[in-house]
Amino acid sequence: MEVTRKLAETCSNMQYSDLPRPVTHQVKRCIIDWLGVGLAAAGHETTEILRSHVLQMGGAPQATIVGSGDRVSVEQAALVNGTMSHVHDYDDTHLTTVIHPSSPIIGAATALAEWRSISGRQWILAIAVGMEAALRIGLSVYPSHYDRGWHITGTAGVLGAAVAGCKIEGLKDDRMATAMGIAATQSSGLREFFGTMTKPYLPGHAASNGVRAALLAGAGFSSSLRALEAPRGWASVLSPCHDLEVITRDWSPSYEILNVGIKPYPSGVVTHPGIDGALDLKKKFNPDPKRIESVELQVHPLVLELTGKTEPRTGLEGKFSIYHCVASALTYGKVGLDEFTDETVLDPQVMVLRNKIRAESSSELMPEEAQVTIHMSDGTDHCLHIAHARGSVQNPITDEDLEAKFRMLVTPVLSEERAESLLRQCWDLENSGPEPVLRESIISN
Amino acid sequence: MEVTRKLAETCSNMQYSDLPRPVTHQVKRCIIDWLGVGLAAAGHETTEILRSHVLQMGGAPQATIVGSGDRVSVEQAALVNGTMSHVHDYDDTHLTTVIHPSSPIIGAATALAEWRSISGRQWILAIAVGMEAALRIGLSVYPSHYDRGWHITGTAGVLGAAVAGCKIEGLKDDRMATAMGIAATQSSGLREFFGTMTKPYLPGHAASNGVRAALLAGAGFSSSLRALEAPRGWASVLSPCHDLEVITRDWSPSYEILNVGIKPYPSGVVTHPGIDGALDLKKKFNPDPKRIESVELQVHPLVLELTGKTEPRTGLEGKFSIYHCVASALTYGKVGLDEFTDETVLDPQVMVLRNKIRAESSSELMPEEAQVTIHMSDGTDHCLHIAHARGSVQNPITDEDLEAKFRMLVTPVLSEERAESLLRQCWDLENSGPEPVLRESIISN
Repeated sequence: MEVTRKLAETCSNMQYSDLPRPVTHQVKRCIIDWLGVGLAAAGHETTEILRSHVLQMGGAPQATIVGSGDRVSVEQAALVNGTMSHVHDYDDTHLTTVIHPSSPIIGAATALAEWRSISGRQWILAIAVGMEAALRIGLSVYPSHYDRGWHITGTAGVLGAAVAGCKIEGLKDDRMATAMGIAATQSSGLREFFGTMTKPYLPGHAASNGVRAALLAGAGFSSSLRALEAPRGWASVLSPCHDLEVITRDWSPSYEILNVGIKPYPSGVVTHPGIDGALDLKKKFNPDPKRIESVELQVHPLVLELTGKTEPRTGLEGKFSIYHCVASALTYGKVGLDEFTDETVLDPQVMVLRNKIRAESSSELMPEEAQVTIHMSDGTDHCLHIAHARGSVQNPITDEDLEAKFRMLVTPVLSEERAESLLRQCWDLENSGPEPVLRESIISN
Repeated sequence: MEVTRKLAETCSNMQYSDLPRPVTHQVKRCIIDWLGVGLAAAGHETTEILRSHVLQMGGAPQATIVGSGDRVSVEQAALVNGTMSHVHDYDDTHLTTVIHPSSPIIGAATALAEWRSISGRQWILAIAVGMEAALRIGLSVYPSHYDRGWHITGTAGVLGAAVAGCKIEGLKDDRMATAMGIAATQSSGLREFFGTMTKPYLPGHAASNGVRAALLAGAGFSSSLRALEAPRGWASVLSPCHDLEVITRDWSPSYEILNVGIKPYPSGVVTHPGIDGALDLKKKFNPDPKRIESVELQVHPLVLELTGKTEPRTGLEGKFSIYHCVASALTYGKVGLDEFTDETVLDPQVMVLRNKIRAESSSELMPEEAQVTIHMSDGTDHCLHIAHARGSVQNPITDEDLEAKFRMLVTPVLSEERAESLLRQCWDLENSGPEPVLRESIISN
């Protein structure tokens, strides 16, 4: 059997009871994180423009926009919610492929789950299966697909979103393969748009297109059943190299969703080992920024490729500047949303320090690894090697850390009480469903 | 100035009075053809599934779905109308790039034009500029982009749709470049889906995404201003080779829209020289199909690549079979929509003849060229060389032919009287606008 149909078969057969407990637990962690980063961006300009646009287009009141409580069509809710959660570049990351799976897949699954009033277990199942599909599809083309310039969160995400949608819609086997085909022809997204509003838009677009692919497949639309493997199919056209075997390999020995890391800082995941090193040095030695002569970073090559902006001018650009990230860590001793405002990026103290930082790529380092050396003007050196950044597979964010991140993000927009209530509901999702969570997330003005 | 901004500047500056008369006349021909092929597909299953889907999603009553008269959001109208007109593979074709420009660009422009109640002249202007942009963007990457497997009507179409949208929304220069960026990251479509409902879906998807790109750019969304030329921008990522100079070259000496051909037959444009040859031989010698020993075709290599299906099983697959096309021409003496039903494809008479046809690729032939030789069982040979297929740039469909095609398509769904009224309105578009045309197109049940 060919890859697309085989994948559809695996995804169709998967039941909630087949999922190991670490997988269902990880899905709940992803939902909590997705909700937190989304709520923190509910009032952001990117979200507001998109939300206003969607309200202007109009739509049946099928699903809820996170935070606002507006009820729009499932396609529209997937679009806005899948965008919102990526606005701060603070959502979870599959470290091997740099896919941010929750934005497209939870974005799609939640809209449909709410509309169809499915149970918490079915919601978790749809997300687990959709994510696993997207991550394995991503693995089959990584790194050459990403290196070519594709925004893999969107290109692979739309396929996972369609799979998640099919699980909710009860579409199996060839109907699911059909949905993957409809999704594949909508697969898009270029890395050129990193650092603009068009970046977070993409996972939302993928979520929305995945929803539509599932619904059209369910309505009898026809498509190819060989979307992934055909000579002019997804993998061949979108990637110079690919190896599809990873897609159909038995999932049970190692679910890829377990390699999804929760982000401790709202910047590109590749900046995290450097930030860890800077924060730890700040904590240990508290070096006076004025007396720092220079800072030397040794980092994985992807760091400079993705986050090499030396002179960021906006908060958003700051996320794509390892220099700003490390300078903020050394200046403020923390790296949260406040460190990526336009003001902070233009803070003279940070700017002066930023110019003292030199970064060097080393292909001997792993992406989760970095070395930070501070040269003080008195001749002292402080040096730290980070082997596994916080949030990496080897050094995962604990459930307590995740809750702390959630509180930090959500308390400013909801009350402390409702943040706690949301957390409780999410940890107990097997026994509820998406509606109470979405209802509890509405921000009162 | 860089390519994207330069293109945006050219498109922004272009006024109705700048358009040569052959260009405005060609836009009207394209509108007539687009409307005719769309109306002929108004009741098609593909259209019906998509229309029902859109109605289920709901939307503000901003723009009209052609034929049905349903009023939906501009995004949705662009989606359905841009799909409908490609359902029969019968819409116009830019022969150099095989882009079908009207489906995505008139699809997008008409929805917005109706919503904003703009004049006929502004509608024509938006279409002319959007098409020229899409065709030149297509030229810059053709053929390697298409050869790689991209459905160029969608990938270049979304950019042209965004440009047309910006003309209607009054967005200029950097705002238009921004819209092109939002469009570029949504650029998608794979040739694997040819021969399925997912093929016509793609131009509709491009139209809808182009509308959204223009509206988001107008609402202040940010994007890259270097969508086309950036190292990880559209051309580099989506095409192995590209030469962007054609995009910004002075348009006035030769508008590409003048190289858009109206299709005389509802099948892949590459089948047309072969069909011409078969029809002319049928007319001249009326060979008895039972006494045909074999048929030899010499065709451009693209013919077998795109339409090489030897055993089509459905009407849709028949469009992608040069064998079915030629066998139908020799059997029925005409090649219209009736020759691409499931029944015709399975007609034993056609099937027997189909198996007697051999096609040979010759790289010495032009795409608009073919040679057809019929070997009769009595030893007689009939041979015809077609130098320029009907509908090609050198042998264009006349306005009278276009009207005949329109009547043939539209009279079965509207009355003869309304078909005539529509034709009159379209030829006089400078003096009206999109609303009367769309109103006159509503099919009463």
